[in-house]
Amino acid sequence: MPIEVVENKYPHKDYVVNIEFPEFTCVCPKTGLPDFATIKIEYTPDKLLVELKSLKLYFVSYRNEGSFHETVINKILDDFVAACQPRKAKIIGEFNVRGGIKTSVTAQYLSPTQYPKA
Amino acid sequence: MPIEVVENKYPHKDYVVNIEFPEFTCVCPKTGLPDFATIKIEYTPDKLLVELKSLKLYFVSYRNEGSFHETVINKILDDFVAACQPRKAKIIGEFNVRGGIKTSVTAQYLSPTQYPKA
Amino acid sequence: MPIEVVENKYPHKDYVVNIEFPEFTCVCPKTGLPDFATIKIEYTPDKLLVELKSLKLYFVSYRNEGSFHETVINKILDDFVAACQPRKAKIIGEFNVRGGIKTSVTAQYLSPTQYPKA
Amino acid sequence: MPIEVVENKYPHKDYVVNIEFPEFTCVCPKTGLPDFATIKIEYTPDKLLVELKSLKLYFVSYRNEGSFHETVINKILDDFVAACQPRKAKIIGEFNVRGGIKTSVTAQYLSPTQYPKA
Amino acid sequence: MPIEVVENKYPHKDYVVNIEFPEFTCVCPKTGLPDFATIKIEYTPDKLLVELKSLKLYFVSYRNEGSFHETVINKILDDFVAACQPRKAKIIGEFNVRGGIKTSVTAQYLSPTQYPKA
Amino acid sequence: MPIEVVENKYPHKDYVVNIEFPEFTCVCPKTGLPDFATIKIEYTPDKLLVELKSLKLYFVSYRNEGSFHETVINKILDDFVAACQPRKAKIIGEFNVRGGIKTSVTAQYLSPTQYPKA
Amino acid sequence: MPIEVVENKYPHKDYVVNIEFPEFTCVCPKTGLPDFATIKIEYTPDKLLVELKSLKLYFVSYRNEGSFHETVINKILDDFVAACQPRKAKIIGEFNVRGGIKTSVTAQYLSPTQYPKA
Amino acid sequence: MPIEVVENKYPHKDYVVNIEFPEFTCVCPKTGLPDFATIKIEYTPDKLLVELKSLKLYFVSYRNEGSFHETVINKILDDFVAACQPRKAKIIGEFNVRGGIKTSVTAQYLSPTQYPKA
Amino acid sequence: MPIEVVENKYPHKDYVVNIEFPEFTCVCPKTGLPDFATIKIEYTPDKLLVELKSLKLYFVSYRNEGSFHETVINKILDDFVAACQPRKAKIIGEFNVRGGIKTSVTAQYLSPTQYPKA
Amino acid sequence: MPIEVVENKYPHKDYVVNIEFPEFTCVCPKTGLPDFATIKIEYTPDKLLVELKSLKLYFVSYRNEGSFHETVINKILDDFVAACQPRKAKIIGEFNVRGGIKTSVTAQYLSPTQYPKA
Repeated sequence: MPIEVVENKYPHKDYVVNIEFPEFTCVCPKTGLPDFATIKIEYTPDKLLVELKSLKLYFVSYRNEGSFHETVINKILDDFVAACQPRKAKIIGEFNVRGGIKTSVTAQYLSPTQYPKA
Repeated sequence: MPIEVVENKYPHKDYVVNIEFPEFTCVCPKTGLPDFATIKIEYTPDKLLVELKSLKLYFVSYRNEGSFHETVINKILDDFVAACQPRKAKIIGEFNVRGGIKTSVTAQYLSPTQYPKA
Repeated sequence: MPIEVVENKYPHKDYVVNIEFPEFTCVCPKTGLPDFATIKIEYTPDKLLVELKSLKLYFVSYRNEGSFHETVINKILDDFVAACQPRKAKIIGEFNVRGGIKTSVTAQYLSPTQYPKA
Repeated sequence: MPIEVVENKYPHKDYVVNIEFPEFTCVCPKTGLPDFATIKIEYTPDKLLVELKSLKLYFVSYRNEGSFHETVINKILDDFVAACQPRKAKIIGEFNVRGGIKTSVTAQYLSPTQYPKA
Repeated sequence: MPIEVVENKYPHKDYVVNIEFPEFTCVCPKTGLPDFATIKIEYTPDKLLVELKSLKLYFVSYRNEGSFHETVINKILDDFVAACQPRKAKIIGEFNVRGGIKTSVTAQYLSPTQYPKA
Repeated sequence: MPIEVVENKYPHKDYVVNIEFPEFTCVCPKTGLPDFATIKIEYTPDKLLVELKSLKLYFVSYRNEGSFHETVINKILDDFVAACQPRKAKIIGEFNVRGGIKTSVTAQYLSPTQYPKA
Repeated sequence: MPIEVVENKYPHKDYVVNIEFPEFTCVCPKTGLPDFATIKIEYTPDKLLVELKSLKLYFVSYRNEGSFHETVINKILDDFVAACQPRKAKIIGEFNVRGGIKTSVTAQYLSPTQYPKA
Repeated sequence: MPIEVVENKYPHKDYVVNIEFPEFTCVCPKTGLPDFATIKIEYTPDKLLVELKSLKLYFVSYRNEGSFHETVINKILDDFVAACQPRKAKIIGEFNVRGGIKTSVTAQYLSPTQYPKA
Repeated sequence: MPIEVVENKYPHKDYVVNIEFPEFTCVCPKTGLPDFATIKIEYTPDKLLVELKSLKLYFVSYRNEGSFHETVINKILDDFVAACQPRKAKIIGEFNVRGGIKTSVTAQYLSPTQYPKA
Repeated sequence: MPIEVVENKYPHKDYVVNIEFPEFTCVCPKTGLPDFATIKIEYTPDKLLVELKSLKLYFVSYRNEGSFHETVINKILDDFVAACQPRKAKIIGEFNVRGGIKTSVTAQYLSPTQYPKA
């Protein structure tokens, strides 16, 4: 499922978009049982904005995939960055309690053009 | 709908005004269905204060307009800055859930006189 | 997926068991997109208790099934009653927002031996 | 905008459907300014279920209509009952603060076949 | 300040209106210092509805009046009933903490035509 | 510390007064260490209202007294009823956690003139 | 661990004691892993009050015992009733989430002297 | 109403006092209707502490004064600084919703002796 | 009441201990009536840890002492620092509402060995 | 109970994993009674990820061990760091109220390769 993009009409400005998707579900590769998470994305667009409908379908495509928590969040970040090439992006996955333990994973991306100058 | 202004009686001071409007609604340009958002503004006035009644009518004027989330927030920021020429301004639009996804957009303005000196 | 049962050690008493499963998901028969719900069960056991692990697997078996809200809750109630033959049972399904609308469905069962006498 | 209906597959059972729509808006007939409300419906279906997509469009059709709070809630109840002929229905409209006052209106319907016998 | 009324368009139905006013203030007759309360009204209209703007002005008229908690709530109930002659009315006044004590007063009215028959 | 009373100006009506005092403290008779509680009173006055300032001083008089939870709540009820002879009264004491256990005690009074007739 | 009792000084009155213990833990007889629950007790004492310190030690004695949810709550109720012979008692055990499922069990006791007369 | 002060016994230390007053009310100069706000003060005292009783009476003195939001907060800050000459002070006024808009104003003071050195 | 200490087994590490005591009470020196507060302590131990039981008894010793808010918090900080000689300590006292005003006081300590080097 | 590890598939990235375990229990070395805590871990993995099932069993192994609060948290940090050699780690233990006092302990680790360069 490709993440589609649309043109950013305000590329000359630094602004921030937050997206929250509480209906993420994939399958635990060990037990075959479903896992559930809320995915949160915060990004500063450059020339492209992510199109939300296609992003939802991208999330839905994980429904029957086996995935470890740390892997799935890093992979979503890679796919997201490849699709819209943002100035910055941060992705948080907050997974439901399993065995009394609640886990979240937070990964970030900074475009090379955005690094603080030495 | 013009945003009206009144004189700031304390222009010699840096202070902050926060405005929250939970009743913003416009129309999705794709589906023609209504969108809803809470708009939050934080600004440091310079010589002018925004008059709240006219700001409300300005917001109401979006009621039957078609607008993408990222565009509408950047446009409100531009209109707000043009009207009251603040030292700083930040605008956040928190949109209601659509297709299980919740989005917010945050844009900022810094008056040229306010940039940190090199 | 059968709902399994175990013997109730206190059948001579009327007591109540509450079960809450916030990870129910099935597929909307119209759009093919996933639906999400919290399922709540309250029942008074008779000779049998529901075994929780099998109940979870029963819920998980809906994951890729197409089902309307009102139908799925009535079907769960029928399966639950058939499995453990409780004195009373109530099932609530609280579904996530779709198109700005939040829905819940509540169905109940009363064993014939429990009806108030005329 | 007609409220559409679908067949109730479980008419032999008394069960309850709750619907919550936090995005209701109409126009104040006095001031011409928008009003906002959350509409809550609780009903026991008879032979028909309300179709949710058409219900949303029905709500959206009030967007530019002038309506007093007490009138709009009683009218929604009448239209709802006419459309799906439920055994029971209750409608609550919780309106946003105006002039420091928060108002809600609650109206109910009981089908003649449901009245307690004398 | 008179409480004004408008015609109830649905007098043939029993329905309920809730009103909440968190900005009530009067003066403590002992200390001369201000008291604050949230006033909640729940009533079943008969032929008349209370007009909200005039109700607000009625509440505002207490601003510089000295009044004990129990007295002011019973007086508001009397004035409210005299104005709109409801089938039922209940008024709650929740007063702010004074000396570490929080007080509320709840008074009710039932129209003679509404008493249960013997 | 006597609980003082004032005349009820509305004795011909049945209404309810709620009082909440979150600053009650006494001493545990076993350990000598302080106990803390929120005291809640709900009563229907007859000819007399409790005067709040004297009620506070009455509560404060327990500050250095040793008292078991169940005893202190029943004693407060007895003193309260003796002072203002209400139609009904209910007293709840919600005590702070001790040893991981949270306790509350609820006692009620119904005036003989208020008992349902046989 | 016996549950100890003390004399009720107000046996001529019907009053209610609530006890909440959020630190209950036992062991799942299937997996050998710990289970956790909040235990809530509500009772109307007759001639005896439960002594809280001994009740805590009674709860602690379950720490390394294997017990099913439904069994442990019914057993606590039996022991509690045997110890203090209350007029009424209700016990609720709210167990932590396991496998995405949250369970609670509610059992009640009514002394034979308290049954409504036929 | 003068804001009175008392001697700070710990002037050799930098510490912070927070004050919150949720019962501020003044009058809107446009409509003549009351406005309501919570006032929050945070200050680092120098040689003087503000006396709380006189501060309350100072706040109460605004009760029947007409004042715009931005003006009243800046004026309170000026009066507060004049009275106790603090090292730092910040004042926030959070005003109640009017016309669907919630506003707050935040003003700050830094004593000349406290400016960071160049 | 001395605050007792025990040896810190991890003095080679910088770590933080938070303590919260919601049951602090002393007496207002003006009115003789009780004041109530939650005391919060955050400290980085050096060679000594505070023993919690003795800290509680130290807090309890204020029960019948007259003390102004600002004074009592600064005095607790002095006693705490003298007892355990921490690397850093912060103390917050959040006092209950009096006359509609809520106050808190925050004081801090930094060991001379911890000052940032010039 | 060893804490097991698995390979980190994204060692070339700095990302953060949060783990929350609200079911930690050990025994107070003074009283022999159980203590309860929520343990929170935040770490940046290097080449290894902690395996959650073994981490749970590691936590469970404290169940019947006597341990002071400050000691147990520092020991968990040492064991955690030894097992997975993270770039950074922080551990917080929030213990339940004892004697009216709530305590938490926060300890941190920074890998030598992560220190800011001089």
